[in-house]
Amino acid sequence: MNLSEQQSKDRFDRSRVVRLATADAHGSPHLVPATFARQGDVLVIAIDSKPKRHRNLKRLRNILENPNVSLLADQYDDDWTRLWWARADGRAALEEVGAEPGLMNALANRYAQYREDAPGGPLIVITVHKWTGWAFTE
Amino acid sequence: MNLSEQQSKDRFDRSRVVRLATADAHGSPHLVPATFARQGDVLVIAIDSKPKRHRNLKRLRNILENPNVSLLADQYDDDWTRLWWARADGRAALEEVGAEPGLMNALANRYAQYREDAPGGPLIVITVHKWTGWAFTE
Repeated sequence: MNLSEQQSKDRFDRSRVVRLATADAHGSPHLVPATFARQGDVLVIAIDSKPKRHRNLKRLRNILENPNVSLLADQYDDDWTRLWWARADGRAALEEVGAEPGLMNALANRYAQYREDAPGGPLIVITVHKWTGWAFTE
Repeated sequence: MNLSEQQSKDRFDRSRVVRLATADAHGSPHLVPATFARQGDVLVIAIDSKPKRHRNLKRLRNILENPNVSLLADQYDDDWTRLWWARADGRAALEEVGAEPGLMNALANRYAQYREDAPGGPLIVITVHKWTGWAFTE
């Protein structure tokens, strides 16, 4: 059955990890796992502080070239009646951590690691325009 | 630490589900979970038989427009020393099930559901040109 927008958001909230798909200007997709937080129709992903090369990550270069992104939360089980997934399609922008204290707090509330060691890299801030999802059973 | 090509393949083999990212001709990424099998540098994904509309799935339309795909296997744990992911970047083509008995067998060997009810839709056959991966610890 298809999930409603609210059900899809709830499945995101219950997930500890999602996968972020970006694409470069030529349309080659790129995929990484990501921790995240949600505030309404906004999803946020942090980038670890450490080396300067993290400014040069493929996901960041792709977003600067092409802001279209897709994120997926899903559950697999060998009992396929337990399968579900939820997807968020949106547009991403990069923001400095200091400019988005509310989003940074939302991340810190979900992950102890971000409370102990705040990420210093840019935040990926995604404005979701479509929430979809599917579950074998409710 | 970065995983070798062989280590990345092994992580795929140990995973029951991966995520498939495609992109349309305009570069908008699309993301779905997928069961799969691997034979060397080829990954295969089945499409359920049922309705004709399954010929019209977004992932299939995207592959016909733009064969570039990325697939991700990953493990999340709140203990981040247990994190890992593996990625396969490649090019996808659609094949009839009957044309690829070896790949169909590889899927049936991994999933009981495909032994009981063979999928009738096209197979997504991905030739991987790059295997990459990362794990916090070996």
